[in-house]
This record gives sequence, structure tokens and C-alpha cells, in this order.
Amino acid sequence: MDLLKQKILDEGEVYEGNILKVDGFLNHRIDIPFMRSVGKEFYRLFKDKGINKILTIEASGIAIGTLVAQEFECPLVFAKKTKTKNIAGDVYTSKVESFTHGTTYDIIVSKRFLDKNDRVLIVDDFLAVGNALNGLIRLVNDSGATVVGCGVVIEKGFQHGGDLLRQQGVDVKSLAIVESMDHTTGNVTFRD
Amino acid sequence: MDLLKQKILDEGEVYEGNILKVDGFLNHRIDIPFMRSVGKEFYRLFKDKGINKILTIEASGIAIGTLVAQEFECPLVFAKKTKTKNIAGDVYTSKVESFTHGTTYDIIVSKRFLDKNDRVLIVDDFLAVGNALNGLIRLVNDSGATVVGCGVVIEKGFQHGGDLLRQQGVDVKSLAIVESMDHTTGNVTFRD
Repeated sequence: MDLLKQKILDEGEVYEGNILKVDGFLNHRIDIPFMRSVGKEFYRLFKDKGINKILTIEASGIAIGTLVAQEFECPLVFAKKTKTKNIAGDVYTSKVESFTHGTTYDIIVSKRFLDKNDRVLIVDDFLAVGNALNGLIRLVNDSGATVVGCGVVIEKGFQHGGDLLRQQGVDVKSLAIVESMDHTTGNVTFRD
Repeated sequence: MDLLKQKILDEGEVYEGNILKVDGFLNHRIDIPFMRSVGKEFYRLFKDKGINKILTIEASGIAIGTLVAQEFECPLVFAKKTKTKNIAGDVYTSKVESFTHGTTYDIIVSKRFLDKNDRVLIVDDFLAVGNALNGLIRLVNDSGATVVGCGVVIEKGFQHGGDLLRQQGVDVKSLAIVESMDHTTGNVTFRD
């Protein structure tokens, strides 16, 4: 998505530790008209797949998830992160390792909100090593629902989470794939 | 908002400890068409106030915040909850006590995303004792921006956070104010 790549080049900031800061439009301040166009692009890419549910993970997936669900005219469900162990039998749960923070947390989705008839598009703002997406995919598989695909706004291609998922047959579509970035120069290059 | 009250009566579940569970449409599974109508109602209520920014708090405020910002055609900013102390001078911060969890956390907003020219509508899914809203209001005041009002989907009137804010002159508009609820019967009554 050329508009997204241009916005990353114009507004993104690169920091040490593979951090690409795009909080001016994606995950702190939300540029609504722009993010609507992102939602429409995911609809264009996945509209023929019979999707009836969008799944994301709190917190920074919720804004884009909302705008994607609006295009598909279907509900959004967001998985909750939890450190508590009060997990009754009424939720699907999965473990996610945080690459950034070096911690592990549980994600949960109520069993009332996912079932075997669901055809799910998973969306998220970022994809790096793929831990969050893998956790969401396991959770959907546990529910008996079908993962139709994953829509990612920005993939860090050099961390290869997306490549591994595609090798496993998951239909991962990222609107911008960063191939390299350099915090000393601020340069960002994209995969074709 | 009659449609909201009916939805609370139809789908809400009351649990011990003043818990009203409406996660089927508001804060786990998001009923997008319904929440769009909620967003439109906030626009109707505040449209003449010169609002140029919507502010909410992660995670469950983000979906409604997104849909309200869409109506106002302005950006959404969401405050982040943090327990880390890596707060440089580039954020506004405020402390919030969690009534539910008995803990205190910091909320932060980047200084780049709030300034004295902003006229801010704060939105959230729930208002009980008002700790989150009070924290957000302090943060906006610190930035020099103006809090035009607060839009709340469901206020628990019997916990009086909304009343206290109104006494302080804050324009709090809640689309449903629960006056009482009873977990033994499941009954919910609304303030007129």
C-alpha cells in the first residue's frame, strides 16, 4: 500500500532495538481517515473469503480491528491479555511470549465469541517474530473456527515471523513489509 | 439512549461486586453497527462544541473512541497504561487507582499529541467512581488543552463518580445511567 509506505517514510522514526515508531497515526494517535483507508484495503484483499469475524489483540490492534470490521460489516472480537490465573472453562486461552519485554502472558477469548462456524480474519498493527499472531492462531484453532488469513499493517520482514507463517500455509497479507531499517541513519527500505 | 438501555436489559449480566457484564457488544466482542450508532449519538450531543480531538484510555475505550472520532472527523488519542518508570519528559502522565483491582497505575500521553489548542472530548465505555476519567482530565489540564466534556457509554450512577464530576462543572453525558442493579435477581434500573 503505497500511501502507507510513504507515511512510514514521512513520519516513522527508527530507534535502536528494531523499533519503528509510527505512533502518530497507528498506535497512540490514530489518524482516522488514513486508518479507514487501511481498513478498506484489507477488505479489498480478503472480501471474497466469507469472513464473518475479525479478531485482534488489545490494545493497539483494536483501532484498526474496529475499522476493518466496519468494512466487513461483522463483529470485532479482541483477545485480552491477562496475568491472572482466574481462567474458568469459559474461555479459550493461549500463551504469548513478548519479544520486546521478555515476558510471557496469557491471551483469552470468551468461548461465547468464537465457534466452529466462524471464518476469522486476524488483524494486528505490527508483525515481527510473530508471537502474537501465532498465539491468536492457536486460540482460533482451539475454538474450531477457521483462520482465513492475517492482515497486518506493518510487517518487519527482517524478523521473519511473517515468512514462517506463510511457510506454514497461513495467508498473511501485510500492507507494508520493512526489509531493513537503520537507527543510525533513520533509513527504512521495503520489500517489493 | 433507549436502544442502549434495551440492549443492557436484553444482554447484560449482573454479577456480585457491582459488575455489569456487557462484553457481547461493548468491550470484548464489539457490535460494530450498534457501536456506530453510539458514536453518532455522542456526535449529536457534542457536535457544536468545537471538538478537534477524542481522548480515551486503553484498552476497552479504543473501539468506541475510534467510532466517535470517525463521526467528528478528528484524530483519536488513547492514553496508555504503564507500570514502567521509563517516563522521559516527553509525555504527560497521571496516576489512576483501579477500583476493581485495588492497584494504581500511570497513564501517559505523548506531548506531541495534546496541546493548548486542543478541544478534547474524553470518551470511555464505563464510568463508576470516576478514577479513569479524573486521571484523563488531570492529564488534559496539564497539557493546557481544554476538556470540553466526557462521553460515557454506561455510567454506574450508584457509584457517584459522574455526579462528583458534574458538581465540579464537567459536562459528563452518559448514554445510560444505571441507578441500581441486583446480582441476585439480575434486575437493572436506569436513572431517568
